[in-house]
Amino acid sequence: MSELAILKIDCPDNVGLLARFTGFVADRGGNFAEVNQYTDPLSRWFFARLAFEPGVNELGDFSQAFKPIAFERQAQWSLRSASGKIRTAILVSREDHCLADLLWRWRSRELRFDLPLVIGNHEDCRNQVEREGVTFVHQPIRPEHRQADFERMAQILREAKIEFVILARFMQVLPAWLCEEFAGRVMNIHHSFLPAFAGAFPYRRAYERGVKLIGATCHYATEELDAGPIIEQEVVRVEHYHDPEDLRRLGRDCEKIALARGVRYHLEDRVLLHGSRAVVFRD
Amino acid sequence: MSELAILKIDCPDNVGLLARFTGFVADRGGNFAEVNQYTDPLSRWFFARLAFEPGVNELGDFSQAFKPIAFERQAQWSLRSASGKIRTAILVSREDHCLADLLWRWRSRELRFDLPLVIGNHEDCRNQVEREGVTFVHQPIRPEHRQADFERMAQILREAKIEFVILARFMQVLPAWLCEEFAGRVMNIHHSFLPAFAGAFPYRRAYERGVKLIGATCHYATEELDAGPIIEQEVVRVEHYHDPEDLRRLGRDCEKIALARGVRYHLEDRVLLHGSRAVVFRD
Amino acid sequence: MSELAILKIDCPDNVGLLARFTGFVADRGGNFAEVNQYTDPLSRWFFARLAFEPGVNELGDFSQAFKPIAFERQAQWSLRSASGKIRTAILVSREDHCLADLLWRWRSRELRFDLPLVIGNHEDCRNQVEREGVTFVHQPIRPEHRQADFERMAQILREAKIEFVILARFMQVLPAWLCEEFAGRVMNIHHSFLPAFAGAFPYRRAYERGVKLIGATCHYATEELDAGPIIEQEVVRVEHYHDPEDLRRLGRDCEKIALARGVRYHLEDRVLLHGSRAVVFRD
Amino acid sequence: MSELAILKIDCPDNVGLLARFTGFVADRGGNFAEVNQYTDPLSRWFFARLAFEPGVNELGDFSQAFKPIAFERQAQWSLRSASGKIRTAILVSREDHCLADLLWRWRSRELRFDLPLVIGNHEDCRNQVEREGVTFVHQPIRPEHRQADFERMAQILREAKIEFVILARFMQVLPAWLCEEFAGRVMNIHHSFLPAFAGAFPYRRAYERGVKLIGATCHYATEELDAGPIIEQEVVRVEHYHDPEDLRRLGRDCEKIALARGVRYHLEDRVLLHGSRAVVFRD
Repeated sequence: MSELAILKIDCPDNVGLLARFTGFVADRGGNFAEVNQYTDPLSRWFFARLAFEPGVNELGDFSQAFKPIAFERQAQWSLRSASGKIRTAILVSREDHCLADLLWRWRSRELRFDLPLVIGNHEDCRNQVEREGVTFVHQPIRPEHRQADFERMAQILREAKIEFVILARFMQVLPAWLCEEFAGRVMNIHHSFLPAFAGAFPYRRAYERGVKLIGATCHYATEELDAGPIIEQEVVRVEHYHDPEDLRRLGRDCEKIALARGVRYHLEDRVLLHGSRAVVFRD
Repeated sequence: MSELAILKIDCPDNVGLLARFTGFVADRGGNFAEVNQYTDPLSRWFFARLAFEPGVNELGDFSQAFKPIAFERQAQWSLRSASGKIRTAILVSREDHCLADLLWRWRSRELRFDLPLVIGNHEDCRNQVEREGVTFVHQPIRPEHRQADFERMAQILREAKIEFVILARFMQVLPAWLCEEFAGRVMNIHHSFLPAFAGAFPYRRAYERGVKLIGATCHYATEELDAGPIIEQEVVRVEHYHDPEDLRRLGRDCEKIALARGVRYHLEDRVLLHGSRAVVFRD
Repeated sequence: MSELAILKIDCPDNVGLLARFTGFVADRGGNFAEVNQYTDPLSRWFFARLAFEPGVNELGDFSQAFKPIAFERQAQWSLRSASGKIRTAILVSREDHCLADLLWRWRSRELRFDLPLVIGNHEDCRNQVEREGVTFVHQPIRPEHRQADFERMAQILREAKIEFVILARFMQVLPAWLCEEFAGRVMNIHHSFLPAFAGAFPYRRAYERGVKLIGATCHYATEELDAGPIIEQEVVRVEHYHDPEDLRRLGRDCEKIALARGVRYHLEDRVLLHGSRAVVFRD
Repeated sequence: MSELAILKIDCPDNVGLLARFTGFVADRGGNFAEVNQYTDPLSRWFFARLAFEPGVNELGDFSQAFKPIAFERQAQWSLRSASGKIRTAILVSREDHCLADLLWRWRSRELRFDLPLVIGNHEDCRNQVEREGVTFVHQPIRPEHRQADFERMAQILREAKIEFVILARFMQVLPAWLCEEFAGRVMNIHHSFLPAFAGAFPYRRAYERGVKLIGATCHYATEELDAGPIIEQEVVRVEHYHDPEDLRRLGRDCEKIALARGVRYHLEDRVLLHGSRAVVFRD
């Protein structure tokens, strides 16, 4: 099997759209491996992800030929090779469970992405990163120099040509301008079942409320804290005898799994944003 | 095996409490079938549920003998036969899925309770109730006569000597005085994963927020809406293509199961309240 | 929105198949509501389910026009209106939890099918069926007249023009010739997580093995016991203190949910068979 | 809070056993943190785990005093400090996901045990182990020298005074004499939902059977392959489009979590064996 190409597209709905797009690919000798399509009935908006073996054609030729069609349909779209690795940065603070989990999945090639650097606002994770042969950059975020520190961090991301940022328990709220610059390309893991317990200390608050299930939420970061489009959620049952420390322990496994799944969906172009909601063509 | 007795008790913690209570039972020839104990480390409060075969002694004698011990320990407690059925009323509105589910579990004796009556604020469920040989009382709750209507409903409950009230999608907020009168004895099913989406239209709001899991919460009703101690929660995965109507359908199964489990725990004296939290000795 | 039509199709894979089929629908003014497609990479077999608003055309015209295309592709296919109700019979024995659950979903129109009759090999469920206004037929299956009894049962199904048979804990193994006659149209619920504990007494055997999760499996009945294509499975966690009776109680909720989902998938033409495996386009 | 002591005990059931044991602890000033008790109703066998703050007494004194009581009751028992770390060896082959997961939990002190060595029958995992400062021993298991190779491995375990052996995807069947020598102290993770798919290639066989859920099982190794007492199981939903490679990927997360939980239960003395079943007092 040759390398797959992935065409991601969304636009106003219309009769015959799917036939049009699949026909376009088929006419150029593309053979579909996986087709996902969804039309939002309220907004009459069309979403599709077409994964296909491109046959003899170059992807560049596909793109050229598709441009006028996309323009005509007022579509947002992207076409890329599934084997092209996205340049990714992981941002961490002190807690390293999500980082360690991602590093294993990256090293074992379960998740395929380029990892030019990991940025920590503390030094704690340096050794764990460097021993994998990955650059670790320490960029503190000081309350009194927040703006400058984040500007420096953004500069590092820009210089490394980072396309995708994973907040692996980064524990810092990104400034609005940074969310804007990387809109739809910053993924966060929040340690609660959103929209419950947005903000600080979710495990303690879950304990105090006496919930019987706790969870984790993988979402894109937006200007408003913990309010971005949700990609994936995971939960685990808890009991009255679990104290906040137990919840943290049990929650870690939820966090790792929800984040890893979300990252996978992003890397495979399975997520299409639709206002505050995310269309996720899960695999 | 003779009929089990269930001793439920909570009090300030102290060295030797469990030995004291189990010793009390053992000295009178009781043989334990199931023992659950929990001490809350923060408040230093002791909770236990002792299920035992009482042997040759009468429960009344046990109770008499236990009183001074309980008094000395400043304990709240109850002792009753597991075979004694709790007089229960189900309150419904128009939607009948939880009602139908409870009626089946009651009829099949999966859940054991006496059901002298079902009260509906609409007539919709009458046939379904009466064909089981159960009395159906129609007591509308009119916005303009809310206080009087609820007073009439309370009167019905009192006259039928109801000990336990199940709100099976009753869709009405009970007045504070009624929650007070039946404190710890009114169980509600809320169609969201609390504390997310408390209040009205949880499925619509879950859809709009784009969550990837929805749920249901079984809790005791208190004065504050959807804020009472949580007994049980259940969730189900949803996808972007599920509209609010789909969420309602998927959520119904969560509601039925969470409510049935909560009812079971209550009927078997497995729930002990501790402020806003519930100790649930699940089976 | 007009009534949806559902085209279900499978055939040997080929370049351009999906474009061909979606193009066929689009060219006749059909507008897609939901498209699912899968190609099995090992057998190179193509599966699709296309749900669309047919526009101004009659379904009969669609069918006529599609015939030569399907023939050319050596495809198995069906095209029908989503509003057309499948004539269904439920077969029961003594246990009625799945029956009660299905009757509620049928009555509430959560599941849409015609229910001309329920057949019991015991009388136990008669009242529950008849009070819904549904015909109950008692057809015992006597070990010494098994062949004749099943022949009579098949006759009843044929005369009622039954298209779909649900074994709702029927507890009898269908003869091979009956499985053959209704191939892919007899759905069974087995009270274990297949392939574990196929055959008799699964809960007792699960208890004896000491598993920590039990489950239920919805599958099509085939000649070989509990070996047909699996449509849906559901599990629930159990503990050492659950005896076989507890497992039966906990398992019932799994059985009801797995069966109801499987029935829904069948009714909505979401299942395509592929040897011993089932392609299920879940919603 | 002082260090907890854990008394684990099982013996023939008798009236007053729990009161006797809790009384014994309380009389010596012990204060209970967690009490778990279960009586198997069929075999009339008593199981308990008592976790308590020992107060002013030495554990040695407790043990001395408890001996005659245990003897009188024909009890199997152990009493140890919760802070005493169990000497543990991890056995691996080539796949390292469970190893990496356990190493993180060990390093972060989520799981507390001494890890004098990791043994691999291949060299693949050496670097990952040694960089944690843990000894890695390569001990091949050659088909033609199986007996001698396992004898050498056992010798390594004995010399390192290993009390607990974790087979983290070791992929070798232990000889009967080794299972015997370490009975109840060798924990395995099998990559299927036992008893389904015991033995080789479970993911491939799960794919071929077309199951809708796959899982992993943590159990004690016994002479009979994959038939030992089950400690923990975990499952994940799969779809028709998941090929065996996808199942392996999805299953890895089940394996990691089920094994980590099982290890935790063992380390905290939460598992009591009862023939082929395991009493697990989960936390």
